[in-house]
Amino acid sequence: MTTAPRILVINGPNLNMLGTREPEVYGYDTLDDIETRCRAVTDEAGAVLDWMQSNSEAVILDTIHQAVGNADWIVINAAALTHTSVAVRDALAMFSGGKIEVHLSNTHTREAFRQTSMISPVANGVVMGFGAMSYIMAIRGILEMARETETHG
Amino acid sequence: MTTAPRILVINGPNLNMLGTREPEVYGYDTLDDIETRCRAVTDEAGAVLDWMQSNSEAVILDTIHQAVGNADWIVINAAALTHTSVAVRDALAMFSGGKIEVHLSNTHTREAFRQTSMISPVANGVVMGFGAMSYIMAIRGILEMARETETHG
Amino acid sequence: MTTAPRILVINGPNLNMLGTREPEVYGYDTLDDIETRCRAVTDEAGAVLDWMQSNSEAVILDTIHQAVGNADWIVINAAALTHTSVAVRDALAMFSGGKIEVHLSNTHTREAFRQTSMISPVANGVVMGFGAMSYIMAIRGILEMARETETHG
Amino acid sequence: MTTAPRILVINGPNLNMLGTREPEVYGYDTLDDIETRCRAVTDEAGAVLDWMQSNSEAVILDTIHQAVGNADWIVINAAALTHTSVAVRDALAMFSGGKIEVHLSNTHTREAFRQTSMISPVANGVVMGFGAMSYIMAIRGILEMARETETHG
Amino acid sequence: MTTAPRILVINGPNLNMLGTREPEVYGYDTLDDIETRCRAVTDEAGAVLDWMQSNSEAVILDTIHQAVGNADWIVINAAALTHTSVAVRDALAMFSGGKIEVHLSNTHTREAFRQTSMISPVANGVVMGFGAMSYIMAIRGILEMARETETHG
Amino acid sequence: MTTAPRILVINGPNLNMLGTREPEVYGYDTLDDIETRCRAVTDEAGAVLDWMQSNSEAVILDTIHQAVGNADWIVINAAALTHTSVAVRDALAMFSGGKIEVHLSNTHTREAFRQTSMISPVANGVVMGFGAMSYIMAIRGILEMARETETHG
Amino acid sequence: MTTAPRILVINGPNLNMLGTREPEVYGYDTLDDIETRCRAVTDEAGAVLDWMQSNSEAVILDTIHQAVGNADWIVINAAALTHTSVAVRDALAMFSGGKIEVHLSNTHTREAFRQTSMISPVANGVVMGFGAMSYIMAIRGILEMARETETHG
Amino acid sequence: MTTAPRILVINGPNLNMLGTREPEVYGYDTLDDIETRCRAVTDEAGAVLDWMQSNSEAVILDTIHQAVGNADWIVINAAALTHTSVAVRDALAMFSGGKIEVHLSNTHTREAFRQTSMISPVANGVVMGFGAMSYIMAIRGILEMARETETHG
Amino acid sequence: MTTAPRILVINGPNLNMLGTREPEVYGYDTLDDIETRCRAVTDEAGAVLDWMQSNSEAVILDTIHQAVGNADWIVINAAALTHTSVAVRDALAMFSGGKIEVHLSNTHTREAFRQTSMISPVANGVVMGFGAMSYIMAIRGILEMARETETHG
Amino acid sequence: MTTAPRILVINGPNLNMLGTREPEVYGYDTLDDIETRCRAVTDEAGAVLDWMQSNSEAVILDTIHQAVGNADWIVINAAALTHTSVAVRDALAMFSGGKIEVHLSNTHTREAFRQTSMISPVANGVVMGFGAMSYIMAIRGILEMARETETHG
Amino acid sequence: MTTAPRILVINGPNLNMLGTREPEVYGYDTLDDIETRCRAVTDEAGAVLDWMQSNSEAVILDTIHQAVGNADWIVINAAALTHTSVAVRDALAMFSGGKIEVHLSNTHTREAFRQTSMISPVANGVVMGFGAMSYIMAIRGILEMARETETHG
Amino acid sequence: MTTAPRILVINGPNLNMLGTREPEVYGYDTLDDIETRCRAVTDEAGAVLDWMQSNSEAVILDTIHQAVGNADWIVINAAALTHTSVAVRDALAMFSGGKIEVHLSNTHTREAFRQTSMISPVANGVVMGFGAMSYIMAIRGILEMARETETHG
Repeated sequence: MTTAPRILVINGPNLNMLGTREPEVYGYDTLDDIETRCRAVTDEAGAVLDWMQSNSEAVILDTIHQAVGNADWIVINAAALTHTSVAVRDALAMFSGGKIEVHLSNTHTREAFRQTSMISPVANGVVMGFGAMSYIMAIRGILEMARETETHG
Repeated sequence: MTTAPRILVINGPNLNMLGTREPEVYGYDTLDDIETRCRAVTDEAGAVLDWMQSNSEAVILDTIHQAVGNADWIVINAAALTHTSVAVRDALAMFSGGKIEVHLSNTHTREAFRQTSMISPVANGVVMGFGAMSYIMAIRGILEMARETETHG
Repeated sequence: MTTAPRILVINGPNLNMLGTREPEVYGYDTLDDIETRCRAVTDEAGAVLDWMQSNSEAVILDTIHQAVGNADWIVINAAALTHTSVAVRDALAMFSGGKIEVHLSNTHTREAFRQTSMISPVANGVVMGFGAMSYIMAIRGILEMARETETHG
Repeated sequence: MTTAPRILVINGPNLNMLGTREPEVYGYDTLDDIETRCRAVTDEAGAVLDWMQSNSEAVILDTIHQAVGNADWIVINAAALTHTSVAVRDALAMFSGGKIEVHLSNTHTREAFRQTSMISPVANGVVMGFGAMSYIMAIRGILEMARETETHG
Repeated sequence: MTTAPRILVINGPNLNMLGTREPEVYGYDTLDDIETRCRAVTDEAGAVLDWMQSNSEAVILDTIHQAVGNADWIVINAAALTHTSVAVRDALAMFSGGKIEVHLSNTHTREAFRQTSMISPVANGVVMGFGAMSYIMAIRGILEMARETETHG
Repeated sequence: MTTAPRILVINGPNLNMLGTREPEVYGYDTLDDIETRCRAVTDEAGAVLDWMQSNSEAVILDTIHQAVGNADWIVINAAALTHTSVAVRDALAMFSGGKIEVHLSNTHTREAFRQTSMISPVANGVVMGFGAMSYIMAIRGILEMARETETHG
Repeated sequence: MTTAPRILVINGPNLNMLGTREPEVYGYDTLDDIETRCRAVTDEAGAVLDWMQSNSEAVILDTIHQAVGNADWIVINAAALTHTSVAVRDALAMFSGGKIEVHLSNTHTREAFRQTSMISPVANGVVMGFGAMSYIMAIRGILEMARETETHG
Repeated sequence: MTTAPRILVINGPNLNMLGTREPEVYGYDTLDDIETRCRAVTDEAGAVLDWMQSNSEAVILDTIHQAVGNADWIVINAAALTHTSVAVRDALAMFSGGKIEVHLSNTHTREAFRQTSMISPVANGVVMGFGAMSYIMAIRGILEMARETETHG
Repeated sequence: MTTAPRILVINGPNLNMLGTREPEVYGYDTLDDIETRCRAVTDEAGAVLDWMQSNSEAVILDTIHQAVGNADWIVINAAALTHTSVAVRDALAMFSGGKIEVHLSNTHTREAFRQTSMISPVANGVVMGFGAMSYIMAIRGILEMARETETHG
Repeated sequence: MTTAPRILVINGPNLNMLGTREPEVYGYDTLDDIETRCRAVTDEAGAVLDWMQSNSEAVILDTIHQAVGNADWIVINAAALTHTSVAVRDALAMFSGGKIEVHLSNTHTREAFRQTSMISPVANGVVMGFGAMSYIMAIRGILEMARETETHG
Repeated sequence: MTTAPRILVINGPNLNMLGTREPEVYGYDTLDDIETRCRAVTDEAGAVLDWMQSNSEAVILDTIHQAVGNADWIVINAAALTHTSVAVRDALAMFSGGKIEVHLSNTHTREAFRQTSMISPVANGVVMGFGAMSYIMAIRGILEMARETETHG
Repeated sequence: MTTAPRILVINGPNLNMLGTREPEVYGYDTLDDIETRCRAVTDEAGAVLDWMQSNSEAVILDTIHQAVGNADWIVINAAALTHTSVAVRDALAMFSGGKIEVHLSNTHTREAFRQTSMISPVANGVVMGFGAMSYIMAIRGILEMARETETHG
């Protein structure tokens, strides 16, 4: 893995509505706001950032398939699919790069069915509960690991 | 909260053995190594870092009690107590500052009993699976939030 | 909310096959027949009726998102998605208008997995077991409430 | 079944207190108010409405037994008995006419033990979550079906 | 609440047999003996004591309904209904005064089905395992609180 | 116990409808028919037969209480109360004579909730699945035991 | 079925030890004693009684297979196999005659694993808790039904 | 059904990646390789083979709907949807032809959530664990049955 | 037991924080306030009161061990240990004097994991939900029983 | 493995009754008929077929033990033992050749206890639901794999 | 019990294969090797050792029955029957001598279904995880207890 | 490992009370008695025995940590911690020497919560139910294995 990793960020169903609905749960940032903040971080680090959102499980699966050979890391907020999609889990398991699961809120403080993640067992790490900062922390973590690998690896 | 937050890092049972036992699970870093790396980050940011480890639930409870008024954030890797201690949960719930749960490994890829956390429901955020980096990501996230609050708050 | 509410009716997977398959379970009415009967009711009341069916969860999510500001009520027969889709639940939760869940059959007399609804907890009301009449009863209920609000509100 | 069906409405324990206790849960309508509104509907349709409330399971069982041959439909809000009474279920199963279960509130948004209904599996249909309107919708549905049967039957 | 609270004590099914059957479980006191001992306490305090026992859930519901405005506190030993009656729970929830659940024996040392109480979640307090003394302790607690309220309130 | 035991037969909710409703489940015998057949057996044996049916749990409890000292055996078909009534169980446990649970149908071939009996653990024996014969077999068994006791006891 | 039915009684594992071990649970009768008492009843009625006991599931299966065409009723005390043997259940299901399950003790008062019967769902009736009398009651019930069929059938 | 049945093979999410990812689990055959081998079998038998793969549940539903009248058998490897999709189950239930469920691996040797199939209960048969051969065995079985029907039917 | 019983009150983890944290849950009384109120009661009665609090399970175990022969009753608010500590349960089981479990709040109105008590099955009685009064009621109950024993014993 | 594999077919309890009992579940083929059809397939392929049936688990275990070194594949329809026998599972696990589980019916459409297989986790593949054809499909699959191994291996 | 106890060692299904199959799980010792080692211990102590193995539950039951009066202790490795056989449990419960359960491996490190033992609740002691040594430890423990009884008893 | 292994015996909470409390459960031996008997065995074998007891989980963890490099085997009776302590399990997992779990009583004959051991899955062997002899058997087993290793290793 090079010091300028290619990072693919995947956003699942309903996240396109972010910032306009239920801000008391999800905050006032739109998904574009979050992308802008993430891109500032990756640009500064010379890393490549691919960003996508879809309400369709099939489109997300296609995106993960195409990431093979084209991305070093996947950062995924699978939203509602986190708790139900065996298909997204299987696709991620097929992706041999790093995988970080992120959530805006701490899912453990919500309904019981949100406390089971199909994705955690195939992810390298999990960051949740920091709002938009969850994404940035995940990306910074990836960059730091790339830098370390370069220095000491 | 000021821009130089006081951060208390609490490490639970058996973490004193880190780096010497089962490195294939927990890595080769000792707990001192991790402290050194964290302190580099907080020193650079002018933040205060308090660091402790104990195998005793009672000592951890006392530490959390004393943090009231003396710390702005608690970063806690409760280790084995994560899954069993109602007392640590209750103590954290009484602490009105921010609380971040960290784990070296992704607990979701291990035994079933490690997939229930008594602590997550009273934490603001969770970071797991990045090895020593989990601690650093948690601290950087706290610093970033402090900085933002200062700028925009 | 005005006396002529805008009502969006959403029909989930397989409902396009209605009236042609397994009539002993679902009856002989096609989905077009049901739409016609519903439209007679809304036309007479001067209400607006939007009607859609899709086998795609993603299309249903998009439809709910677009209903924000364009519909006062959603009547939804989520069919198979009733029991599995966290995403449809989340989208409905984001919709601040009224939400009525309808089913042709009484799902409580069928398989165990059909007795859990992801949607009921975010709906205002539920009508099931009346065949095509379930839809009409839901719409009449909405109209009646609109009329009452006008008179007494 | 004739076009002017005889409808028996059964109200279970505590519903006599309606409108005076916990209005934030159950609304300000008394049970008499609801009966008056229902009777307006049945009177206009020329239908017969029998209305009863009892805190006694035994009295409710007797009422269901006597409905055999004297009523075409039973509309039942069994209240607390919904979740516990095998006896009411058995009595309803013995009644060969139509049976509609109604609830003022959407029981799926309340405690777990309120989400199991002993009655749903022996009912033809269920209407819940519309307050007093739940009763009226059930009755209108019955009248409509009677009318259809007359026209097309 | 005045210093001489009106206290209604409700005794559920089979408690009329107390003292004559299975004394090794329930002791040799009859229910009349317990009433006498309770009345000595309330008389001395100038409080009003209403005492009733019924094997009928319906009669108990009626009694709770009539307590509205006529009693300040309900002390209830619901006996077998403790574990099964949603109706008694709902009636108690409608009563806005104080509610104390009492049991002669410690129900946690008996069969598993006796360890779930429908009533505890709507009670203010619970006293169990002291035999007849459970009642007296509950009443003394109520009187003490009334006295404190008068002095400091 | 004498050779002419006093036998009390208790019939629970809905059994008054026997023979007129759902004969494919419960047979064509009315409860009076069954009583007549039982009485033929007890008369021939010179035994005393008390027979009652009630839809009210409270009346059944009172009956069991009064059986103390007045009956040697209770034969009980608790019907729907079999599966729900802790109160009937507690009353039977207080009755020190013999207790036989009977059912017309084999409850193990019906719904899951009918396969738990609150009463079996406090009964001496169980007879089910023989229709009206279940009662007669229970009574004959009691008589036979009385005879044996007389001869050999 | 003729008035003199051919009855096969099957006894499962460990019942050969009856009367010599744990008499406080199973009584002092040996299995031979029980057979003698049963044969007295069938001889008097002119019925045929086949009696067998085996500790081997395979032998019991063979016996049930051979009963096809050679027996009208099977009375089975499957003992320990009651709770575990799908094979005995399947063999009984293939036998089109009547099937009565008997047990010496009331299995509902014993360990939890004894409260599930693989056999009850394929039996016509169940008799338990009467000791040796359980067998006799089952046989008398069969004879009575044969007699009735002859008289009224 | 004619001797040359029309067979539709449906492949679910991620199966397009077959042969390139995780070969230790799924083998080195691509989905095209499997199709080629299946087509050799159907061509030789003069049967019609329709083959499709999709990552989209909606596309799979549409395909099943269009199979009505156009296919005699459906062979389906629903992959991840096997364990979660009520919609695919409902669509298959509406298809009145034969339905065979196939899997490359023996799902019973994998994670617990892969051991529940929504599809098995509506399928005629299941073949799993033979890798690509699972498909061929399913098709040969169908052809054989068609041949038998022709010869003996 | 003498009329002036020696009572040991044990307070578990986090109770040292009482009155300063989360007063909406636990009230404004400090643990010292509660001790003062309890001591007023025991002093007046001439009873001995030992009072301790510890965050350490080990210290609590030592205290219970030393109570053997030195205390007649233990009143214990095990706080968080209530739900998790087999060790405290075992120690209490070894103490042959009386044992009363107390809680400030009604634990049945809180999280599910607080509704299981390891301690209740080895306690003589339970008092909960009266705030500081829970302690006083427990102590008064003990004193009263001592007085009765003296008078009638 | 040679191209003419030695195949041992094991049939479990009650399968000797096949074709004579419950044909609506198991079909009209006797076990001899199925053997004849299988032998036609193995004879044509020059393969060795050993065929056995037993109602005795012990005999089946002995047969599996003797298969070591004498058979290349075991095809097993363990019938009722499928769901209960740890011993058959352990014996199969010790057999290092290929193992195919077959069932006549689709067990997933039957009772819940038939949906757990002790054998599937140690089998290479599973074929069910094709009646007698299930056996033939399993054998053809084995032969095909042998042929492939010969050609490409 | 004398100082030279008669010890019966029972080995369950598949243990005859020991040492030849799956040595990584069960070791390289054959059952004969283990018997030889055990006999060395009992011979030296002058104790009687009876040793048997069977794949048949029925033969094991017969052996336990015959042990009554002929053996002082039973050491049993029930193998697969450990987890399933109520019959072996019942037979052991009837044996009034000492009973020790042994296993070669630590069953708690294997599949979930191996972690429930039907036999442990009726055994005096359990030894597992020491390979062949488990047997020897059990026998030595028995001998030691016999010696102690002789010396001090 | 040498022939004179260093053995550390760890005793958990409440075991210091042994011999003085509940002798009917735990026997009359004190922990000192057991140590003496164990030491006789290790002294004779020239092995080193370290013996400790603590009521504190933290002290036990420290002891296990210090055993690294200082002990060859740990024999642990974790008492109440057996069922609850993830921390003790984790510490034992870090210890690479042998680990034997011992219990005085057979925990399978006690409460349900005592039948789950956190420690068994990380232990090499388990000995329970022999009272003080359980310790001696564990130590003898260790010595024997050391001797064997010396002779044959």
